[in-house]
Amino acid sequence: MSTEREKARQPGTKGLLERMSREPAAWMAGDGPSAGIVLSSRVRLARNLQGVPFGARAKEEEKERVIAETRTASREAASLRGSVYVDVSSLSEIDRHLLVERYLISRDLAAESGSRGVIVGQDEGLSVLVNEEDHLRLQGIASGYQIEAAWRAVDRLDEELSRRLGYAYSDAWGFLTACPTNVGTGMRASVLVHLPALVLTKEIGRVLHGVSQVGLAVRGLHGEGSEVMGNFFQVSSQATLGLAEPEMVQNLIGVTRHLIENEEKAGEVLLRDARAEIEDKVFRSYGILRHCRVISSEEVMSLSSALRLGAQLDLVGSVKAGTLNRMLILTQPAHMQRTIRGGDGAISRDQKRAEIVRALLAPDPSTN
Amino acid sequence: MSTEREKARQPGTKGLLERMSREPAAWMAGDGPSAGIVLSSRVRLARNLQGVPFGARAKEEEKERVIAETRTASREAASLRGSVYVDVSSLSEIDRHLLVERYLISRDLAAESGSRGVIVGQDEGLSVLVNEEDHLRLQGIASGYQIEAAWRAVDRLDEELSRRLGYAYSDAWGFLTACPTNVGTGMRASVLVHLPALVLTKEIGRVLHGVSQVGLAVRGLHGEGSEVMGNFFQVSSQATLGLAEPEMVQNLIGVTRHLIENEEKAGEVLLRDARAEIEDKVFRSYGILRHCRVISSEEVMSLSSALRLGAQLDLVGSVKAGTLNRMLILTQPAHMQRTIRGGDGAISRDQKRAEIVRALLAPDPSTN
Repeated sequence: MSTEREKARQPGTKGLLERMSREPAAWMAGDGPSAGIVLSSRVRLARNLQGVPFGARAKEEEKERVIAETRTASREAASLRGSVYVDVSSLSEIDRHLLVERYLISRDLAAESGSRGVIVGQDEGLSVLVNEEDHLRLQGIASGYQIEAAWRAVDRLDEELSRRLGYAYSDAWGFLTACPTNVGTGMRASVLVHLPALVLTKEIGRVLHGVSQVGLAVRGLHGEGSEVMGNFFQVSSQATLGLAEPEMVQNLIGVTRHLIENEEKAGEVLLRDARAEIEDKVFRSYGILRHCRVISSEEVMSLSSALRLGAQLDLVGSVKAGTLNRMLILTQPAHMQRTIRGGDGAISRDQKRAEIVRALLAPDPSTN
Repeated sequence: MSTEREKARQPGTKGLLERMSREPAAWMAGDGPSAGIVLSSRVRLARNLQGVPFGARAKEEEKERVIAETRTASREAASLRGSVYVDVSSLSEIDRHLLVERYLISRDLAAESGSRGVIVGQDEGLSVLVNEEDHLRLQGIASGYQIEAAWRAVDRLDEELSRRLGYAYSDAWGFLTACPTNVGTGMRASVLVHLPALVLTKEIGRVLHGVSQVGLAVRGLHGEGSEVMGNFFQVSSQATLGLAEPEMVQNLIGVTRHLIENEEKAGEVLLRDARAEIEDKVFRSYGILRHCRVISSEEVMSLSSALRLGAQLDLVGSVKAGTLNRMLILTQPAHMQRTIRGGDGAISRDQKRAEIVRALLAPDPSTN
């Protein structure tokens, strides 16, 4: 494939990536229910096309065919109106990481070679990964504690695409997938939760053990194998075989409610037993973020976690979940690299990050 | 001595101690020359009375006589107009420490027993310690780099007292003192300097070695045996025998000029080679001090040192040396204990200290 040909194929990609590096997606607005604790709710469906080999066994021309058919189908899907197809194989490494940081593609898809891409819906709430492990991975993502809404949106998209694409399906097994653990509904539902009070009260181990006992998996911020950072945990449904979609969704809804309640209770305990120390932790984090001149993304993650706890506990009234989400997203490494490429070459990434963080928190919302 | 009798002897002591716990002394205003680097200039003269045994050999009634004679003489000394005599032996431990934190009495005088006290001049710039190691220790202290001014003030007081008190003096040796190292002029001149840039550039060892080579001693914030904290160093003249007062004063003036120049040069190097890192250090310190809810006096010392560097390098325009001196003085342990005793019993010392620090830095003087 020549780069020229690829570029011609990607109307809108440049504008989309530009906008992403400056603005968070709609689902990061922090306006959903319980958005202080649940950052996002996400449902993805694994689908494969009949008559095309799955995963690694697909040849390059077969992958191209999957892309072509999916793009055609997506143009007719109402849910994907205004979407942009991004050819991941022709992107720079920074831009592939940008999409990983947006939760639009997996780290695997970023690292692999061969024809692959992602169809990005208008507000990034819906997207379709093409030629990752499966031919298609449909994703719906919503702000806050809205698992059912995310599921309904991606379910509708699935419905629309299935009318135009022949899915590989067995009456006995359900949807067929590249990896047997996904066979069945092909669904994985997950929430990204922020549990600082449970970490501070050292209750987190017990609570997460309970979560894994009911068949859910707990991972770090960027899915499998990623570290737990900034007290963020990704909790997701695991085995799909045997459990119907509504049951999986209801299961995750219940567990998430349980996590929210436990986190809120731990927050009350902290305020009761160590109010001064918690306020100190929250306001020092605020003070550093508000005034730093050089800062790493890890430190932003950790300090903004304390500030998020402060917002959750009503200690810093004017700092909103949306501002903190914005901070989290826009200060990630690939976002930063893109921002700097666009301007100020003289200052370092950590300096630029400090500038962005300070601007997000100005003017001073704490009167004392 | 009954406590009742002692209290009756101390008109003005209560008011003086109250005021001290709320307000720094005049010499802490930070308005002297080079006050960003030289906090204070101090000269003390050791004097003893003829016909009374020195130091530990003096009996209790002889000590009482020294106090009585000195108080009488001080009432007639113009330099001590409006002064207050504080009977240290009848003070609580907190109040003795308060006087140590004010540089009015030594830690030795605070810890010893027996009749002893201090005559405190109207603005704390002049004072006379009675029955420490020597019968009298006259002290003059001035804001910033004003060694000569401090010397002239204490020299005038010495003149006034000598007219009324018979000093122990030998034509061969000069003023006789309890410890032979003080015999002669009985003088020690010192400056309290803040040298953070020399510490950061690791030049401090070399520079202080040079200082000790010319016969000066370097100590921590509270004199002999005290730790170096917050990048503060006390540099003082040592051997008094053989060197006349004007020479000692000129010697210290020259060395201090040398320290100021070296510190300023190191500051320029920092700004040239590591501007972002220095700004970050300064503004993070500002952010923490401005927003903390719990803080130890050691941390105030260390963070305010960074902020003082920032003020010196013109990075934080609106933070003044006087504000930082105030912070340093008012947040010391005994000052804090007195402040809390006067009010809010419900909050801890470290919480109250954070409150004071925040109030001193509000409103936000940094616009970005």
